[in-house]
Amino acid sequence: MILTVTLNAALDITHHLDRLRPHGSNRVRAVAERAGGKGVNVARILHALGHPAVVTGLAGGLTGRAIRAELASAGLADRMLSIAGESRRTVAVVEESAGDTTILLEPGPVVGAEEWARFLDHLDALLADATAVVLAGSLPRGVPEDAYARLLGLAHTRGVPAVLDADGAALSTALSAGPALVKPNADELAAATGLSDPVAAARALHAAGAGAVVASLGPDGLIAVTSQGSWRARPPARLAGNPTGAGDAAVAALTLGLATGAPWPGRLAEAVALSAAAVAAPLAGDFDPDVHRALRSRVAVRPFAPFAAEEPHPCP
Amino acid sequence: MILTVTLNAALDITHHLDRLRPHGSNRVRAVAERAGGKGVNVARILHALGHPAVVTGLAGGLTGRAIRAELASAGLADRMLSIAGESRRTVAVVEESAGDTTILLEPGPVVGAEEWARFLDHLDALLADATAVVLAGSLPRGVPEDAYARLLGLAHTRGVPAVLDADGAALSTALSAGPALVKPNADELAAATGLSDPVAAARALHAAGAGAVVASLGPDGLIAVTSQGSWRARPPARLAGNPTGAGDAAVAALTLGLATGAPWPGRLAEAVALSAAAVAAPLAGDFDPDVHRALRSRVAVRPFAPFAAEEPHPCP
Repeated sequence: MILTVTLNAALDITHHLDRLRPHGSNRVRAVAERAGGKGVNVARILHALGHPAVVTGLAGGLTGRAIRAELASAGLADRMLSIAGESRRTVAVVEESAGDTTILLEPGPVVGAEEWARFLDHLDALLADATAVVLAGSLPRGVPEDAYARLLGLAHTRGVPAVLDADGAALSTALSAGPALVKPNADELAAATGLSDPVAAARALHAAGAGAVVASLGPDGLIAVTSQGSWRARPPARLAGNPTGAGDAAVAALTLGLATGAPWPGRLAEAVALSAAAVAAPLAGDFDPDVHRALRSRVAVRPFAPFAAEEPHPCP
Repeated sequence: MILTVTLNAALDITHHLDRLRPHGSNRVRAVAERAGGKGVNVARILHALGHPAVVTGLAGGLTGRAIRAELASAGLADRMLSIAGESRRTVAVVEESAGDTTILLEPGPVVGAEEWARFLDHLDALLADATAVVLAGSLPRGVPEDAYARLLGLAHTRGVPAVLDADGAALSTALSAGPALVKPNADELAAATGLSDPVAAARALHAAGAGAVVASLGPDGLIAVTSQGSWRARPPARLAGNPTGAGDAAVAALTLGLATGAPWPGRLAEAVALSAAAVAAPLAGDFDPDVHRALRSRVAVRPFAPFAAEEPHPCP
C-alpha cells in the first residue's frame, strides 16, 4: 500500500453563497465538509484510481473526530495518530454568482514533544507495509522544522521510497535526507533556490539531494529533472477550473509511478493528465475521470538537455 | 431557575486576522469558539449575574458536541435535546486593523417531525421547575412556523411566564398565544406591523396579544408598552462597541424583572444598563461589569402617554 502523511490535517469546510458581502452578515446557502490536507487529498485520488492508500498524520479534538469520521465515510483507511490539540479547519467561501473563492486557513494545533516522538514510532510501524510514502503539506506548530528529514530517515531505513511535497524550511532541511522525489510548484521552486529559471532551480534541488525533481508549472505542465534524464510534459490545452488540488493529483500519479517503476515519460504524462482532470473537478482530492481518460494519451512529453540554453555548458 | 430555549443553537467561531482579502487565501492568526444562539447568550448573562439558568434547545452532530462541551466548560446547565442533524456554525472574521467584522451564518440542521414532538415533551418536563422561560432566535428548518406558539402554550399551561425574542412569522404566529413579553428591535417591530413609528408598532403588538412589548432602539435605548403603563428608557451616553448581544442582555434583564416582579422602571433601567455593558464587551453573551455598575443608576426612565402625539386620541 501507499502511505500518505498529513501532519496538519484539516477539516475543509465549503460555504456556498451567492455573493460575499465583506463587513456584512452573510447567510450561507449550503455547507459541505470533508477531510483535507495535501496527504489526505493524495490518498483520496489514489483510492479513486483503485490503489490502496493509508492515511496517517496527526488529528485531535472534535475537529479531528470530524476529519476521521469523513475519512471513514469516504472509505479511506485511517491510521491517524490522536493528539490533544484541536485540528484546524479551512473555510472556502464560494460565490456562486462570480465563481470567486475566499479562503480562511486556521493555524491548527500545537503538537507536544511527546506526541511527536510517538508519531515517529507510529510511522515507523506503518512503513513496514508501505511500498511508497508521501509526505505532504505544512508542518503544525510544535513539530521541529526538520520534521520531514526525520521522517525521510525512517523511510530510508525501511527501504521505502518517499515523495515530498513541501516548501520553505520544511523542504530545504529535508533535501539532504534523500527524498526519492520532490514536487515543488514554480513559486516554491524559486523560493527554495533563489533562482527564477525553473530548470536551473530544479537542477539545484536535484544536486542538493532529491532523487528526482518534478516541478508543476500550472497550465504549462511539468518539468522533471532526474538521474535518468530530464523532460517537459505539457497538456494539449489549457483547462479552466479550480487549480487547488492539481498538485496533489500530480503527486498521486508520480507516487504510483515510483511504486511501480514505470518509465519516466509515462509517469509524467499520467501526472499531467491527472492534474488537468483535478482542475476540472470542483474540490481538491477529486478529479474528472473523463478528462483523465481523454488526456492521458495526448500529453506531449519531450526530453531536454540537462543544462538550460542560457547557461554556459560546464567544461568536460 | 430560568429556562432559555435555543432551537437553532450554534457554534460561534471567531477568526482573528489582520485584514480580510476577499477572493484570496487568508491565514487566520487566532481562533476562538463557543456556544451561541440568542437563548444561550441570555443564559450566559444570567449565569454571570449569579442567577441559575438552564439551557435547552436542539443540538446535533459533532458541532452539537462542540456546543455542549463549551456549555459545560462555561458552567452552564445543559439540557439540550440531541438531534440527528448537524448543528450550525457561525464564523465571525474580525479584522484587527480596521475593527471590521464579516459574518457567515450556516443554515443549520433540518429537524425531523419526531424530534420536534420529542422536544415538546422534553420542554414540558423542564418547565415544571422554571420560574420563567426565554424563547429566542431563529427556527431551524423542519420545525413548524408556529413553533413558538406551541411552546408558549406549554408554558401557559404550566403557569410559567415567557419572554419571546423572535421575528417574522415566528413572532407574528406567536402573539395570540400570549407571551408575557416580546422584545423586537426597531427593524423587527416595523417588519411585524408595517408601522414605522415604534410606539404605534409596539402598541399594535401589545393589542395582538403580547403582555408587554419592549422594543430595543439601539443607542436610543428602549420603549416599553405594557398593561401597567408605557415608558422610555435612555442610556446617559452613546457607547462605542459591538452591538451583537445587546438585545440578548436586555432580554436577560427583562426576564429577571419578570421572574422577580420588580417595578417596570427598575426593570427597564437594568435592561438599558446591561445592554450598554454588552456593547462594551467584545463577544455576544458577555458584558462589562464595570459599565453595568456605573450605568444602572444613570438611566433616564420616563413614562409617556399611551397614544402617540401624531395620532388622534380615541373618544372616551
